[in-house]
Amino acid sequence: METPGLRVVALGGGHGLAAALAAWRRLTAELTAVVTVADDGGSSGLIRREMPVLPPGDLRMALAALAGESPRTQQMADLLQHRFGGSGVLAGHPVGNLMLTGLTEMHGGDAVRALGVLEELLGTQGRVLPMAEVPLDLVATVASVDPDDPQETRRIRGQVAIASTPGHVEDIRVSPADPPVPPEVLTAIAEADVVSLGPGSWYTSVLPHLLVPRLRTALAETTARVVVVLNLEPQAGETDGFSPEEHLRVLLAHLGGVSLHTVIADTAAVVDRRGLLSAVQACGAELVLAPVAAPDGTPQHDPSRLAAALASVVGAR
Amino acid sequence: METPGLRVVALGGGHGLAAALAAWRRLTAELTAVVTVADDGGSSGLIRREMPVLPPGDLRMALAALAGESPRTQQMADLLQHRFGGSGVLAGHPVGNLMLTGLTEMHGGDAVRALGVLEELLGTQGRVLPMAEVPLDLVATVASVDPDDPQETRRIRGQVAIASTPGHVEDIRVSPADPPVPPEVLTAIAEADVVSLGPGSWYTSVLPHLLVPRLRTALAETTARVVVVLNLEPQAGETDGFSPEEHLRVLLAHLGGVSLHTVIADTAAVVDRRGLLSAVQACGAELVLAPVAAPDGTPQHDPSRLAAALASVVGAR
Repeated sequence: METPGLRVVALGGGHGLAAALAAWRRLTAELTAVVTVADDGGSSGLIRREMPVLPPGDLRMALAALAGESPRTQQMADLLQHRFGGSGVLAGHPVGNLMLTGLTEMHGGDAVRALGVLEELLGTQGRVLPMAEVPLDLVATVASVDPDDPQETRRIRGQVAIASTPGHVEDIRVSPADPPVPPEVLTAIAEADVVSLGPGSWYTSVLPHLLVPRLRTALAETTARVVVVLNLEPQAGETDGFSPEEHLRVLLAHLGGVSLHTVIADTAAVVDRRGLLSAVQACGAELVLAPVAAPDGTPQHDPSRLAAALASVVGAR
Repeated sequence: METPGLRVVALGGGHGLAAALAAWRRLTAELTAVVTVADDGGSSGLIRREMPVLPPGDLRMALAALAGESPRTQQMADLLQHRFGGSGVLAGHPVGNLMLTGLTEMHGGDAVRALGVLEELLGTQGRVLPMAEVPLDLVATVASVDPDDPQETRRIRGQVAIASTPGHVEDIRVSPADPPVPPEVLTAIAEADVVSLGPGSWYTSVLPHLLVPRLRTALAETTARVVVVLNLEPQAGETDGFSPEEHLRVLLAHLGGVSLHTVIADTAAVVDRRGLLSAVQACGAELVLAPVAAPDGTPQHDPSRLAAALASVVGAR
């Protein structure tokens, strides 16, 4: 199924991006992950409040997803992902978040260089890059769900706050509004054969890439095929009750000149096939319905099934 | 100057052990560092209060001192030694302390296995082992220096407390009194050609090895040549006003059946040569007076000078 030399850029964050990378690495070694840096929760949130570095969590997960398959590199991936036990100030921090933060400090704040050291250590199949050179905050307008609330909408700042505020996200933007993007990211997008977006937390891992002007411009200008992998189910606090069609609708509203070529959705997750198909066709894309969910029924993409669907899209044998 | 196959075990902790290792690695690759685990200050103290692991700081320093010389392994050594900046809860922790702690947790508390992973990562020339399998506390009897103090002596628990209590240490022991020692340590001592002790914080990095019964028994039974490297100057709070002779006197009082063969002292640091010589001869050892201090006058051992003195002792060409 491998397609030697296929240049792929995968955009996203968290477990969704890890799933996309687990699929893409079966198809090519020319793989670049471009990772969201807007997380402000958990270990990443604590670290970014403590020192001026990118939130490391999503970057760490992408590194682990691309780690080499030898026992040595897998052991390093296990170390990166290991979370401290105990009940003190270290409890819950993944070791890799601290390694990446330490390396970034060591290299004068240069996260791309720090990631390069970890890529070598992990023997990663491909590169991991941050979507921006500075930490981002998400700022959303959320519609109130309380009929007695005198305010119809509220402006909510921060990924965690957005995900935990009841109500639908009506609008979302990043702060700062026009952050610098690593040149390596812009080059990878310009030279890519395929760019993938999703799956993942829609408002906080997938859309942010379209909200960064320099990234959106690069995506609008690339000749790469743009593939969107839709989520399997709604996410509480972000996309409650969202069907795959609604995920797509939100995405289309933020495209701003970026062309979509292919939309991949799980066969069983789609209820209104006709609605989804017309939404996909309206933006000039093709719809691929395939069984990409894990066969055990958990709401996760199965790497080998997703790889098969992606292979059919990119024409891999 | 290399002596291929010379099996050396270096006992100690902190900067003193790092200096001994920097010297020994010039002479042999068959090197085992046996490191104190009684530190309760700084990053190590915070970590051991937070989770049930060995204090990692002295182990980390020994690993860094034995790291391979390639750019890759030196970069890893730099990462191990890098201390977090900022002003939060991570500030001041060396990254390597957290990596070693995480690896130890990952391997179910097996510090020797965790150290093995870092040895591989750093391409260390030799091994680093803890002197005991459990964290130790030092308990000292310290003579009061205040003439109005109704108590003549006080029992002080903990390395930091001992070092910061005014007055001379009259007696020191470890708690627990008979901790388990890794079998790899006992084997290395049994098979060694040379065992070195010091330099370093005398009461907290050098003597503790003689206070652990199973370690002392192994040292009493080995056929290895036992070499003591004396400190260059007294250490505040521990050995205020101590001459090299007095360092030796304290050591002799704790030998308990361990033979001393050679004592190395810096030529310029010794005031009472006759006194030192007779103390050395009284325990059946030979005295080597050599210029082993750093030539710039800082109170540190110079690795290449110390290596030359050690080479003369072990008969290296």
